Amino acid sequence: MARVFTINGSPSPTSRTAALLRDVVGHLRAQGHQVESLNVRDLPASDLVNARADAPEVAAAIASIASADGLVVATPIYKAAYSGLLKIFLDLLPQYAFEQKTVLPLATGGSFAHLLALDYGLRPVLSSLGARHIVGSYFVLDKTIRLLPDGTVELDGEIEPKYRAAIEAFTDSLRRHAPTH
Amino acid sequence: MARVFTINGSPSPTSRTAALLRDVVGHLRAQGHQVESLNVRDLPASDLVNARADAPEVAAAIASIASADGLVVATPIYKAAYSGLLKIFLDLLPQYAFEQKTVLPLATGGSFAHLLALDYGLRPVLSSLGARHIVGSYFVLDKTIRLLPDGTVELDGEIEPKYRAAIEAFTDSLRRHAPTH
Amino acid sequence: MARVFTINGSPSPTSRTAALLRDVVGHLRAQGHQVESLNVRDLPASDLVNARADAPEVAAAIASIASADGLVVATPIYKAAYSGLLKIFLDLLPQYAFEQKTVLPLATGGSFAHLLALDYGLRPVLSSLGARHIVGSYFVLDKTIRLLPDGTVELDGEIEPKYRAAIEAFTDSLRRHAPTH
Amino acid sequence: MARVFTINGSPSPTSRTAALLRDVVGHLRAQGHQVESLNVRDLPASDLVNARADAPEVAAAIASIASADGLVVATPIYKAAYSGLLKIFLDLLPQYAFEQKTVLPLATGGSFAHLLALDYGLRPVLSSLGARHIVGSYFVLDKTIRLLPDGTVELDGEIEPKYRAAIEAFTDSLRRHAPTH
Repeated sequence: MARVFTINGSPSPTSRTAALLRDVVGHLRAQGHQVESLNVRDLPASDLVNARADAPEVAAAIASIASADGLVVATPIYKAAYSGLLKIFLDLLPQYAFEQKTVLPLATGGSFAHLLALDYGLRPVLSSLGARHIVGSYFVLDKTIRLLPDGTVELDGEIEPKYRAAIEAFTDSLRRHAPTH
Repeated sequence: MARVFTINGSPSPTSRTAALLRDVVGHLRAQGHQVESLNVRDLPASDLVNARADAPEVAAAIASIASADGLVVATPIYKAAYSGLLKIFLDLLPQYAFEQKTVLPLATGGSFAHLLALDYGLRPVLSSLGARHIVGSYFVLDKTIRLLPDGTVELDGEIEPKYRAAIEAFTDSLRRHAPTH
Repeated sequence: MARVFTINGSPSPTSRTAALLRDVVGHLRAQGHQVESLNVRDLPASDLVNARADAPEVAAAIASIASADGLVVATPIYKAAYSGLLKIFLDLLPQYAFEQKTVLPLATGGSFAHLLALDYGLRPVLSSLGARHIVGSYFVLDKTIRLLPDGTVELDGEIEPKYRAAIEAFTDSLRRHAPTH
Repeated sequence: MARVFTINGSPSPTSRTAALLRDVVGHLRAQGHQVESLNVRDLPASDLVNARADAPEVAAAIASIASADGLVVATPIYKAAYSGLLKIFLDLLPQYAFEQKTVLPLATGGSFAHLLALDYGLRPVLSSLGARHIVGSYFVLDKTIRLLPDGTVELDGEIEPKYRAAIEAFTDSLRRHAPTH
């Protein structure tokens, strides 16, 4: 079973991005993966803004990434790109922090007009961090995610297969790249 | 004369980006333009991280942008793109905050390998803010900027003409788009 | 009055891209501009594929660009980017072929999911050609363009204002950058 | 052993791109892979320019891609992006032509300033074709490739390890994703 670290780049405490990510985590745990999660907004704001990679909570997150096999990187789309909050955290990572890792990019947005922001905007950043395998990006329209009272989400029926396929591509890559003992 | 607002997206208090920007401001003032400057890192960190567009200092910066004719947007290049700190501020702006404005994108970086990060990464974000005219991006290699003891900069002789041309393209656009009274 | 050169990058003789471009040309001529048009597909195929910039018809197109004040660059969106046919022609141009020129990027596509292909994909290429002013890109959904029997087009009412605004931004820039005599 | 199809997007018959690709093919064959190669420039020019996906030679290339496990996509960098010749061929492929395939993007260019053209420009196009795994892009400076009289190439010593690593990442992915019988 793989170790997965999830990064939520939404500044909102009640975002669809966060809810979607919780759902992904549920699927990963159900498959036996060990998952640790970070909301970038929970890190000390002044450490983020002043780029303190050695502040305790930032350093702990960096260490978790170092020991993870896979990463789920989730962001809302703002101004035709990933959130600044996500990037301010990625900027704190060592140059090849994603080496030997599989990455699943996820985004939520208000319009399909933002779809290419993941592949044109986020993917080159993830590549520069040395990611071995960035599986197909998964973009969800806000209106196709319903937040239920218990904090879980319900996705529109028609997008469910693509959602399952995105998670499956990620776990398949984790399995195929697992260290052979 | 035009009103210009400069935005420095470097998290470092002693960055080459900041020094270069001070030099640009000197040139603009010498031409009679009125310049106001923002270091994003001087805004309250928790307002940035929590996306509080109505916090007093953030709101004041947004108002200054609204009344500016031109913007200079400067960033170091990290992880093949603009800094997260710059983007976290841009994310706080209204959707068409750059409408009717001329924008000069500036970056400093350690290698020419980062050159395209401005045109491929930053420009689409500036476009999404509705900028009327984004003049040619100007990228400076760190090693061609010398920080002098008095806080000013000296640029390598061979890049001086391109630097002048970038500023001239910006002020030329400001002049041509000046409101006709 | 300005000289405008239009470039159609669609490989199809009956494309919506071509029809839209004819409509743009009509507007420009009605404003008194002098317009010359190129369908890249009309150039000799072997000159394009073998990169013969000095072949007579290619050289004539390059000369027309050199003497133009403004360019309209139109392309369908294929595989999340501009057409290869458009790029094969742009590859034949001298390095700074668009210097001192205003450019209007236009695209047609089947889905809003392709919208960012212009700003992320085409704009950096136009920038590399030295364009002075690339005005706001204009993207039209195929289904909002109706081809009329006489070869003209009719646009959906709701997009008409944005279409007019895109052309107006282009002609406004041409006027403001006109050589002063 | 895997089936690999290589695509050369250079319009020049004596290009460094072609020579580098021949060298890659040599390494792949030495490892026992079965390799088929296409120079896009050898396809009938009028079929490319008129987008005839069903022309015999184009259809044969599409069929070879369909049966390949991996693809090497090589291009010179022109105007801050992949060549138009490469894209004109990619435009002819079915929408998900790269599904279930591993892709190695290769480029040659005159300056490191073009490095990001692969990750920002080409990779989103390869993603749109449904590629399962696009391994790390490999960019080679023209001046580090020497063409030897026998048509082979010699790479500068210092880049040799990165070159080997790029090929190894590709063949490792091919092996890990091999159909299990």
